[in-house]
Amino acid sequence: MSEPLFDRVALIGIGLIGSSLAHNIRAHGLARHIAITTRRAETLKRAEELKLGDSYHLDAAEAVRGADLVILCVPVGSCGAVTKEIAGALEPGAIVTDVGSVKGAVVQQMRPHLPETVHFVPAHPIAGTEQSGPDAGFRELFENRWCILTPPDGTDAEAIDRLKRFWEGCGSTVEIMTPDHHDLVLAIVSHVPHLIAYNIVGTAADLETVTQQEVVKFSASGFRDFTRIAASDPTMWRDVFLSNREAVLEMLARFSEDLASLQRAIRWGDGDTLFELFTRTRAIRRGIIEAGQDTAEPDFGREHGRHEPERK
Amino acid sequence: MSEPLFDRVALIGIGLIGSSLAHNIRAHGLARHIAITTRRAETLKRAEELKLGDSYHLDAAEAVRGADLVILCVPVGSCGAVTKEIAGALEPGAIVTDVGSVKGAVVQQMRPHLPETVHFVPAHPIAGTEQSGPDAGFRELFENRWCILTPPDGTDAEAIDRLKRFWEGCGSTVEIMTPDHHDLVLAIVSHVPHLIAYNIVGTAADLETVTQQEVVKFSASGFRDFTRIAASDPTMWRDVFLSNREAVLEMLARFSEDLASLQRAIRWGDGDTLFELFTRTRAIRRGIIEAGQDTAEPDFGREHGRHEPERK
Repeated sequence: MSEPLFDRVALIGIGLIGSSLAHNIRAHGLARHIAITTRRAETLKRAEELKLGDSYHLDAAEAVRGADLVILCVPVGSCGAVTKEIAGALEPGAIVTDVGSVKGAVVQQMRPHLPETVHFVPAHPIAGTEQSGPDAGFRELFENRWCILTPPDGTDAEAIDRLKRFWEGCGSTVEIMTPDHHDLVLAIVSHVPHLIAYNIVGTAADLETVTQQEVVKFSASGFRDFTRIAASDPTMWRDVFLSNREAVLEMLARFSEDLASLQRAIRWGDGDTLFELFTRTRAIRRGIIEAGQDTAEPDFGREHGRHEPERK
Repeated sequence: MSEPLFDRVALIGIGLIGSSLAHNIRAHGLARHIAITTRRAETLKRAEELKLGDSYHLDAAEAVRGADLVILCVPVGSCGAVTKEIAGALEPGAIVTDVGSVKGAVVQQMRPHLPETVHFVPAHPIAGTEQSGPDAGFRELFENRWCILTPPDGTDAEAIDRLKRFWEGCGSTVEIMTPDHHDLVLAIVSHVPHLIAYNIVGTAADLETVTQQEVVKFSASGFRDFTRIAASDPTMWRDVFLSNREAVLEMLARFSEDLASLQRAIRWGDGDTLFELFTRTRAIRRGIIEAGQDTAEPDFGREHGRHEPERK
């Protein structure tokens, strides 16, 4: 890489995504200066200990001053308030973007506060782990992942292109779509799966006939994978569901309808209905492996145990 | 290991579990002779090519003749028919066991056919991957995993102990419980999670507003893990749901009730209810990691891609 794409990047929020971006900007020389701001002094101090940036600010407005790229890495529900806070300090010509998992609501919350002089290009990197905080970030998080941009009609093409190159610099492939379509797609591939995972872990915790200790002990048989998803950041996910309400409720209604029909098949011993669905779902899995979104390796959840047997 | 625990083991069925057992019996010297039998000539031939056993039989009765351990590794729904087929050829004193994910129904189906002279000790190794067939097996599958035995009241203690040592020889830790309790535990930690995974993959496939290609493309955000589970063997899982009907329907009813209440919280913007659940589920995840049933490593599904970036 010859010239950095940006002079000064302001990262607002330094959790999993913010800190992973910091690692990327540094490693790939995407900007000359990384300004980090976050609400909690303790988190900011930790970011400094980890040497994630070049300057550290408790005042968000101070961080964005002079920045030609401003990235909001905060839960979706905080985007509006943060934008209001920084609006007056934004440089004309700056690109303002976010990393939120919902786009319609983010656009609604941020846009009214933004001056006409900046380029607003909402973004959503489809990457994450169940971990959070400044220690959770790592450089490879965005590699081979999709990043969806949802620029409003009439957005400056050059600004879109620069942000696209930024995400490509982090290893991602960029896709452009409308906020509404983004929210529908994510409702089914991400939001409803997370809700279901949270829900079954809750159902299991509340049982009287099976102890929580038994649930933990025998979790290897499917449940374990749900608990991983259900360990995701509670604030972020609360905001996602409240902000993408319509699409989530629509997908959830379909899910429940389909589940009721499987329940009926089980009750009446209709094995053919079950078998037909279970066969159909295998084809989708093959599609995902062929698309390089996962490997065909069997996952039995014990990468370490496999080579260093530790008997209990 | 000094003396093999068994003289001749008959493996009826040579899929993921059967072939993994064959690898274990050989590697740990658990028996002198491995007799393999399976219904399809093609599968039997493949088992022979893989050198999984010492003798190969299309006739199950022939395989069990002279065996002091007979393990049914067939889908739960076939256990009754197979038991009927081998009953007359079983040696007095032989231990007859299975590996089915449901125990109440298996006991009901197998027991009536078994002669009084054999020891019937149903078993369920809690281990598996989403793959199936004789090629899918590997030695480490049972390592550090639980194996649940559900011997009927009055079963010979020496027989239970021998089978326990057999599973310990495969690397598992053995737990003993009643068939009914087993079926309740497994309904919540395994059967319902699988049903839900199958269901959401089906719901996603049926959408008109989001294409299947989009679902595959953006699956990294949660959906992908469900497709892995939903790629499990259709016949095995159909039988599981039909055989553990009561417990599955009971757990499913609770799951749907809980989901309806989350749906209501989303509709009415009740963030506290969501946040409270999402926080509670994290504790269960910690329990699972502390119990050594999973690692805390973030899983973002691309072990290979991480080191050998393959851009598409």
